[in-house]
Amino acid sequence: MAKLVMIRHGQSEWNAKNLFNGWIDTKLSPLGIEQAKEAGQLLSETGIEFDHAYTSVLTRAIETLDFVLFEIGQMWIPESKSWRLNERNYGALQGLNKADAAKKWGDEQVHQWRRSYDVLPPLMDSYDEEVTVEGETYPSYDRRYADVPEGELPYGESLKVTLERVLPYWNDEISKKLLAGENVLIAAHGNSLRALAKHIEGISDDDIMGLEIANGQPIVYDLDDELKVVSKTILTKD
Amino acid sequence: MAKLVMIRHGQSEWNAKNLFNGWIDTKLSPLGIEQAKEAGQLLSETGIEFDHAYTSVLTRAIETLDFVLFEIGQMWIPESKSWRLNERNYGALQGLNKADAAKKWGDEQVHQWRRSYDVLPPLMDSYDEEVTVEGETYPSYDRRYADVPEGELPYGESLKVTLERVLPYWNDEISKKLLAGENVLIAAHGNSLRALAKHIEGISDDDIMGLEIANGQPIVYDLDDELKVVSKTILTKD
Repeated sequence: MAKLVMIRHGQSEWNAKNLFNGWIDTKLSPLGIEQAKEAGQLLSETGIEFDHAYTSVLTRAIETLDFVLFEIGQMWIPESKSWRLNERNYGALQGLNKADAAKKWGDEQVHQWRRSYDVLPPLMDSYDEEVTVEGETYPSYDRRYADVPEGELPYGESLKVTLERVLPYWNDEISKKLLAGENVLIAAHGNSLRALAKHIEGISDDDIMGLEIANGQPIVYDLDDELKVVSKTILTKD
Repeated sequence: MAKLVMIRHGQSEWNAKNLFNGWIDTKLSPLGIEQAKEAGQLLSETGIEFDHAYTSVLTRAIETLDFVLFEIGQMWIPESKSWRLNERNYGALQGLNKADAAKKWGDEQVHQWRRSYDVLPPLMDSYDEEVTVEGETYPSYDRRYADVPEGELPYGESLKVTLERVLPYWNDEISKKLLAGENVLIAAHGNSLRALAKHIEGISDDDIMGLEIANGQPIVYDLDDELKVVSKTILTKD
């Protein structure tokens, strides 16, 4: 039996401004840093000894992982980073304020993009575009994606598409560790974790969008030998 | 041609107290955190794009690496941690105040342990021992060393012995990346880096103990196709 712990990163600078974040590489806000440390403190009380840590290639998730590993005194465990654990790519919505997007496309359309399982957001035109927010410019693409197989770089994803690109990493890499009895920690994003939770818990397409994953609240799964969920506990301060 | 950057961790809590630190897993002091961030800011001005980062399994080096990668905006690069990059194991001196050690064994003996290339310190009796400093207890051993081949776990090391256990990792892992043209960042310790510098620069046994590596000052090597040093630059604030 192995333990799997998933942690959504702390609040990012763009979460704080209510902007669509997606693949744009933003940092934790001061509140986000506190949330990441708290997640580590909560996890430390469980005494779980991890064998491997996974995260995305986005700074806010990696920062969160680092704070958590520091708090639990397990910075030394092996750590793998993959674009397949990135947040859902929000396409042309990235960098837009959620209220402005609603003004432009209407509340209902934006709600559908955010809350439906398989509706794609408006796509990015190209990875050459930069996203500018409050005078700061963010690249859409950089060399961290150089190894992504041709044709697999997303221009905008539904949760369904997000799950499809997370799954190979789960199958080829993470689940193998768990099947070998290793305890695994994943620090990632609201939608890459939601996709994983859907797969692990067998949640239906209709129900999955109702699953909220809060920043910095560790989700602890006990999994049996076939990776079926034996128990699920969400650690909170209260 | 590849770039190799080596950074000694910022000041640790035990460096600040003038204690022999070695393999005991202490954290960065507040000054050490500042030094690590400064190292990152200095390195960020070079614009070097790294392909791989290496560090030890000791918290103070990993913390330093994380701060540096954050400052240079390259948290996403692959990261490997190995006990072979650990600090020199100071044996039975670990946890002792340098002044107290001098009182017990004499100035000259302690000076010889610290400054000779191949004299071993007094050895640890066993890894079952704990080291207690100011009421806090530190284990000598934990599961992070479970994979160290039997008989290779050191009970006390000279710089010569430190070099002998660093070298296989250099040969089998780090140098291969450099030979493939990848830029490599290593965040480690005064003596594991001194050992590497001896090997890379071809410094004699007599001269190596005179090489001081300061906390948080990145050492930038340009290496040719055979990993000979073309240039060496130490980045400092002034």
